[in-house]
Amino acid sequence: MFGEMKVFSGSSHPTLAAGIASHIGMQLGKSRITRFSNENIKVKIDENVRESDVFVIQTSCPPVSDNLIETLIMIDALKFASAARITAVLPYYPYARSDKKDEARISITARLMADLLQTAGADRVLTMTLHAPQILGFFRVPADQLLATPVLVNHFRHSDLSNSVVVATDAGAGKIAGHFAKRLGLPMAIIDKRRVDDSESAQSTALIGEVVGKDCIIFDDEIATGGSIKEAARILRGFGVRRVRVGATHAVFSGAAITRLQEAGLDELVVTDTIPIPAEKAAQIPNLKVLSTASMFGDAILRIHGGRSISEMMEE
Amino acid sequence: MFGEMKVFSGSSHPTLAAGIASHIGMQLGKSRITRFSNENIKVKIDENVRESDVFVIQTSCPPVSDNLIETLIMIDALKFASAARITAVLPYYPYARSDKKDEARISITARLMADLLQTAGADRVLTMTLHAPQILGFFRVPADQLLATPVLVNHFRHSDLSNSVVVATDAGAGKIAGHFAKRLGLPMAIIDKRRVDDSESAQSTALIGEVVGKDCIIFDDEIATGGSIKEAARILRGFGVRRVRVGATHAVFSGAAITRLQEAGLDELVVTDTIPIPAEKAAQIPNLKVLSTASMFGDAILRIHGGRSISEMMEE
Amino acid sequence: MFGEMKVFSGSSHPTLAAGIASHIGMQLGKSRITRFSNENIKVKIDENVRESDVFVIQTSCPPVSDNLIETLIMIDALKFASAARITAVLPYYPYARSDKKDEARISITARLMADLLQTAGADRVLTMTLHAPQILGFFRVPADQLLATPVLVNHFRHSDLSNSVVVATDAGAGKIAGHFAKRLGLPMAIIDKRRVDDSESAQSTALIGEVVGKDCIIFDDEIATGGSIKEAARILRGFGVRRVRVGATHAVFSGAAITRLQEAGLDELVVTDTIPIPAEKAAQIPNLKVLSTASMFGDAILRIHGGRSISEMMEE
Amino acid sequence: MFGEMKVFSGSSHPTLAAGIASHIGMQLGKSRITRFSNENIKVKIDENVRESDVFVIQTSCPPVSDNLIETLIMIDALKFASAARITAVLPYYPYARSDKKDEARISITARLMADLLQTAGADRVLTMTLHAPQILGFFRVPADQLLATPVLVNHFRHSDLSNSVVVATDAGAGKIAGHFAKRLGLPMAIIDKRRVDDSESAQSTALIGEVVGKDCIIFDDEIATGGSIKEAARILRGFGVRRVRVGATHAVFSGAAITRLQEAGLDELVVTDTIPIPAEKAAQIPNLKVLSTASMFGDAILRIHGGRSISEMMEE
Amino acid sequence: MFGEMKVFSGSSHPTLAAGIASHIGMQLGKSRITRFSNENIKVKIDENVRESDVFVIQTSCPPVSDNLIETLIMIDALKFASAARITAVLPYYPYARSDKKDEARISITARLMADLLQTAGADRVLTMTLHAPQILGFFRVPADQLLATPVLVNHFRHSDLSNSVVVATDAGAGKIAGHFAKRLGLPMAIIDKRRVDDSESAQSTALIGEVVGKDCIIFDDEIATGGSIKEAARILRGFGVRRVRVGATHAVFSGAAITRLQEAGLDELVVTDTIPIPAEKAAQIPNLKVLSTASMFGDAILRIHGGRSISEMMEE
Amino acid sequence: MFGEMKVFSGSSHPTLAAGIASHIGMQLGKSRITRFSNENIKVKIDENVRESDVFVIQTSCPPVSDNLIETLIMIDALKFASAARITAVLPYYPYARSDKKDEARISITARLMADLLQTAGADRVLTMTLHAPQILGFFRVPADQLLATPVLVNHFRHSDLSNSVVVATDAGAGKIAGHFAKRLGLPMAIIDKRRVDDSESAQSTALIGEVVGKDCIIFDDEIATGGSIKEAARILRGFGVRRVRVGATHAVFSGAAITRLQEAGLDELVVTDTIPIPAEKAAQIPNLKVLSTASMFGDAILRIHGGRSISEMMEE
Repeated sequence: MFGEMKVFSGSSHPTLAAGIASHIGMQLGKSRITRFSNENIKVKIDENVRESDVFVIQTSCPPVSDNLIETLIMIDALKFASAARITAVLPYYPYARSDKKDEARISITARLMADLLQTAGADRVLTMTLHAPQILGFFRVPADQLLATPVLVNHFRHSDLSNSVVVATDAGAGKIAGHFAKRLGLPMAIIDKRRVDDSESAQSTALIGEVVGKDCIIFDDEIATGGSIKEAARILRGFGVRRVRVGATHAVFSGAAITRLQEAGLDELVVTDTIPIPAEKAAQIPNLKVLSTASMFGDAILRIHGGRSISEMMEE
Repeated sequence: MFGEMKVFSGSSHPTLAAGIASHIGMQLGKSRITRFSNENIKVKIDENVRESDVFVIQTSCPPVSDNLIETLIMIDALKFASAARITAVLPYYPYARSDKKDEARISITARLMADLLQTAGADRVLTMTLHAPQILGFFRVPADQLLATPVLVNHFRHSDLSNSVVVATDAGAGKIAGHFAKRLGLPMAIIDKRRVDDSESAQSTALIGEVVGKDCIIFDDEIATGGSIKEAARILRGFGVRRVRVGATHAVFSGAAITRLQEAGLDELVVTDTIPIPAEKAAQIPNLKVLSTASMFGDAILRIHGGRSISEMMEE
Repeated sequence: MFGEMKVFSGSSHPTLAAGIASHIGMQLGKSRITRFSNENIKVKIDENVRESDVFVIQTSCPPVSDNLIETLIMIDALKFASAARITAVLPYYPYARSDKKDEARISITARLMADLLQTAGADRVLTMTLHAPQILGFFRVPADQLLATPVLVNHFRHSDLSNSVVVATDAGAGKIAGHFAKRLGLPMAIIDKRRVDDSESAQSTALIGEVVGKDCIIFDDEIATGGSIKEAARILRGFGVRRVRVGATHAVFSGAAITRLQEAGLDELVVTDTIPIPAEKAAQIPNLKVLSTASMFGDAILRIHGGRSISEMMEE
Repeated sequence: MFGEMKVFSGSSHPTLAAGIASHIGMQLGKSRITRFSNENIKVKIDENVRESDVFVIQTSCPPVSDNLIETLIMIDALKFASAARITAVLPYYPYARSDKKDEARISITARLMADLLQTAGADRVLTMTLHAPQILGFFRVPADQLLATPVLVNHFRHSDLSNSVVVATDAGAGKIAGHFAKRLGLPMAIIDKRRVDDSESAQSTALIGEVVGKDCIIFDDEIATGGSIKEAARILRGFGVRRVRVGATHAVFSGAAITRLQEAGLDELVVTDTIPIPAEKAAQIPNLKVLSTASMFGDAILRIHGGRSISEMMEE
Repeated sequence: MFGEMKVFSGSSHPTLAAGIASHIGMQLGKSRITRFSNENIKVKIDENVRESDVFVIQTSCPPVSDNLIETLIMIDALKFASAARITAVLPYYPYARSDKKDEARISITARLMADLLQTAGADRVLTMTLHAPQILGFFRVPADQLLATPVLVNHFRHSDLSNSVVVATDAGAGKIAGHFAKRLGLPMAIIDKRRVDDSESAQSTALIGEVVGKDCIIFDDEIATGGSIKEAARILRGFGVRRVRVGATHAVFSGAAITRLQEAGLDELVVTDTIPIPAEKAAQIPNLKVLSTASMFGDAILRIHGGRSISEMMEE
Repeated sequence: MFGEMKVFSGSSHPTLAAGIASHIGMQLGKSRITRFSNENIKVKIDENVRESDVFVIQTSCPPVSDNLIETLIMIDALKFASAARITAVLPYYPYARSDKKDEARISITARLMADLLQTAGADRVLTMTLHAPQILGFFRVPADQLLATPVLVNHFRHSDLSNSVVVATDAGAGKIAGHFAKRLGLPMAIIDKRRVDDSESAQSTALIGEVVGKDCIIFDDEIATGGSIKEAARILRGFGVRRVRVGATHAVFSGAAITRLQEAGLDELVVTDTIPIPAEKAAQIPNLKVLSTASMFGDAILRIHGGRSISEMMEE
């Protein structure tokens, strides 16, 4: 439908881009991205893309703003270079947590990002594990959301789950915990930090379900500063659990994350590679396991190019 | 800023529109809505609206599709009659629960509604208690969401709460329950219907927190067919509660709702008037109490017209 | 150009949709349309439509508003399911008679419909016999208008026309009458109900041309309540005609249409199937003949898919 | 609402613009329109228009294309000079007769004109007596249509109508003739040039109603080449009428119009000044009477600026 | 990608269009352009263009406004005739010199032209030698700019350049002169008409570089009225040059151009055929040489249709 | 027209924003800009802006991308907080030098910036001294360009100019040099680094005009890395000038600028404060003089708010 398939990479995550290209079995498109001394970014597409079906791989990671501007410039360059279709492949969607107006006079920035990408020329979007599924509704172009669930589930299935329980770190996390518990065939427990009686202290902590002596697995869509994971691990150990394992899609690891994750003393921390983790950073995080999403993105790109269903792929 | 304020009413909820107009202290704008024998709808605005600041009150209730088309036609008529600004006042937002693509190849219809309203000519939107706050991000025009919380909280505060507990009907409802529990200064409990152990039956029911001999209050954003309320009441009685009261914003009451609510045996069912409840229907629902939102909508309209903050109003 | 052709049907006119699909020689696309107890409509497309050339068949008939909303939701679902092109096939265009602002502050709803269809995602429109040809100008996407003329002309040509005259029911209908008279090689007459002299009564009726003892044929684009047909038949019988036959494209048959058409005592009433006529309704209308447009729509769809001219088809 | 009112004139019809300004009691805005030797047009607005409510008067007359481009450039200049609102005042709407697709692969140019005007920056349109009322639906901005009817009716009412009849030149013109006949309280007649019997010649001419010895008045929306008026006058004289008078809104007078109107031998030809008629041209047309629309346009502009109803003005 | 290639010609420059079609080896598309006596333009496309890849050749030359309106109407007709893609081929871009707001309240008309072309339906633009390269940024659709440089350079390279110098007519023309000097391997000189000292007269003329006894070549993007060329030739002869030759892309030749070019006494005047020069006009201009751009446009059209790079073509 | 005036500042240049607010005599609007550890930016507007006329001051300086994203988020927050009008005040326009496509497949990023600002919600733009005046044509909203010329001219006028000459650093800079020379009543000279004869070296340097023993003044729109200024100063000293002074609007000072400007040995370097120069940086640049543009921006903001002409202000 859209001519030759071409895959270009922004500068945010060359490893993932290379992995995707390798999975597809093709070379990345030739482009040069330059940052001048005045910090202006120049993108030069170095091969003909006329009437091509172009995919641009760029994740949201530091330098966040530079990567965003680079994405917009690259899409703009491709559009006016007459690409037939441009799909923005965004493994970690920018500003995904700014998805509502929970204070007066703030920006729903996840929506603004959708607007900017479309203004620059994105004809489609492919992303993974959004914080809220409503974000797809911010687009006026078709958008596909992959879920890292199968990758994470597959990892845990191949470990010993005989004594395990999935734990939700609070009532709000019950949904995602239930989702994984069902897929793994495991029981579930919930940490409830809210007041359950007037006579109790403001921050009593209850634990629903059986956790004593168990291997707990916590799931989340992203790990940012690691604060809530560290806190949850502390609480769970207080309740006498045996092990604490964590699974999450997006390894943001910002701020004091490394220190907190070290202090959390996790028995396993499983994330995907939607965000690059520098080797020296990864080396400091105990028991870290990074799963590859390259084949999932590669398959999705092939399916989008070929007009085949993404939902069927997710169901496989 | 926008000339004279004028408030028009669609045919969905004349009582609420009259209440709003009365609160503001003005007459509703003159218009005639006709349904021809071929079911086509004609809207005729019967007074000059040029350069006026027009508000159109229309809620989503049966006949749902007719009311939607009528809203779009009315806004279109006002736009081409040179209204300076048109604010769609939608007490119950249409298709609010169709806010995500949780199956392949379905419509995010809450987003489509936003698109259609803007195409017809809506310059702003004013609505109440959305199912998901992300829906505001579906708009490209300013939108205000009122919360019925103060109205509901005020009602319960004036009742005897000495022996009460707020109950979340499942883990997913924990958020809204916590919101109200905090505002009312009450403890909270959670019904957990998910499996907590492999050896247990598929649908074991746990109850976190103290409920024996208590007055339980359940909160939700809307009551549709009443099925989950009936089920929760049954479970709570099994746990030995004293009374079951329910508070909800939108009284959809569709399908077998009346029968189910009768069978639920609620000690009190408190809703607002965002959706009209015909008198004969209301008479069949035991212990029903309908709270008025007219003054809240009236105040919001006056503030929008006057360029004053809505968030400050919500904080009062 | 646009991948595989797929034809989907809304719920308004399954018979016509089946006829079109049969004429084309393909199965209708799989979809499920659900109406919940709260009257919300859900459309689920049950097969992959990525990069397909999709046609959605939906006519405007009761329930008119439900069918419109359903059309918009179906198109929206197809668009975000990555259909390459979506053609709305609208045998009877909605609100076609609301095409001008002949009163202050009303909506040109036929234009609003064009806007809504395009907002939802319609890339093209295919319709039949519009009330005014200017309606095509309401679209910013290519639109084709089929004319039922050949179907109707063909029917009458195969009857005995030896003693026939085409009659315009008033001066305004002269254009359409002349169109058919020319095609059938018949003379024409005009009923003139306007005042021709001050001394005459307000509603004198003149008849231009020869009708005594003749077989009269009246043509119109649609028959709504049947009022004007009944009146014309009465007048013509008063002038001593032998038979009164009627040909019309759209069988709206709303309000008291059945009673009036019974009272009109027509010798033949020929319509097309752009609007479904329930069997029990059809049985009550004397001398009703319904002509099929399925092959015409089928041919047009094949031509649109194949990039062939529709005007040439109409000229054949 | 929109700051100070300012009225600018394009170069098409300075006399009408001056008349409108005089009626309003204000000076025309200062601007210079230059045509370079390369035929490029330059518009320079010579006074501050920021936040002003600007009206641009420009009619469609030769040089038609130059006037159109000039209109678009003038509106563009005003828009980027920060005018608060720009109303295109188009006494004779350009390409009004190109309002439908009655041949394959032609442009609905009246719609294209609406698009171009809005692209250039027109926020509203004010025009007079459109060929088809559906043209208002081509706009996505509010548009007002004035009717020259009151001006023409007023003229004929002040003449001797005792022996008069309004004549429609063919069945299609019946509607406009009826409209005027009713307003003037006159009988009506219709020229019918179509075949009424197979045995008759292809072009027999019937005349419905009484015209012998009468003063006939023919109405039309515009007079282009004068061909149909000349032909109608010839036919009417053949039927023994006493006088032939003509009333029309738009005096296009193109091609051989002058010769034909001379040959038509009209007893009176009444038009309005929506199109300028050069003095030397006017002098050659016998019994020509040009009515002014300046006060009607002036009043409409004042009402638009003041947010008052145009429909009420038309009803006065 | 876009179906069959079809090339249509507006009425501005049939010779160039024929040359392009001939170079491509195909017939021009069938269309009829009519100018009615009321100056309205009608475009009728006389062959099926559905799903075709259509190119419309139209240059900006007198009658400028007529040609512009004709272009817009033709594109509109093609769009609604379902052309898959429409590329406006504009050898001389309209209003190219109105590219900035160097006075208050004027129009950046080159930008307005871009807007109008896109509104009418142009999906791409192909043009040649823009006055300022920023004009490409006025488009929101892909646009290609060809440069006539290779054609002009090729011509001069095949003449005797042994005694030549490229002369810039003022400091502002230094850039273009340098461009050609470099390509031709020639030295450069600059005429400086600005004051270089307070004591000097207001309009002293300096000449930088060696010109005495030399063959001077002046380059410009367009020759409008010929005034500056005539003046430069006079100055150069005053400095004792041997010959004055001129090369320019666009032969506007407006106003008194012929007289001035005659008086300039040029030894050679080389232009391209982006603008038609009537034979009688060409005959009056001494030493005129018109180079063909047909093959360059033809190649570019073939490349656009085939999705091949235009920049590579320019580099060849 | 647009309610109360409010001026907000982004975080790029608080000093200039404070200066502008002080000149206007008002407080800056309250807002909080937060950068989270994940580098996401949050903008919270801390006062009601409904129906206000809001100005957002933000210049393009390091961190360039952060400042851009912050600008877009701030405008988005203001738009959905119901600001009546948002004017982006951009003292140094971002990516101003990326204004053309001088290589294949690059982005015209200055145009992309215009698109992004408008998508976010900018209703107007106010900027200063653009690299190319065509950039204003990239906007579809009104944009004003201030020129720093009066500020710079005023500075030099108050110094001793008796022995001065304005020098253009190459032919391309002749235009801006001439502009200042005229305003200051000074003679001009031009450095010509291009070849003027085949026998000369590739990089011979000529100097047109009198400079020996003179005070030279060089003007430019911006100073980036200082390379060309350093080179020009070296050349001029080789020609025996007395002093070298420089005037420029935008003090980008990127890369090795400080070192180069130190090595250039300028007698005076005059810039404006459109870009903040940190005190420690300023201290290292010899003879640096920074002129304030605060009053010019303040006056322009007051004029825009009051609907008064900006061009008249520039002419004063």
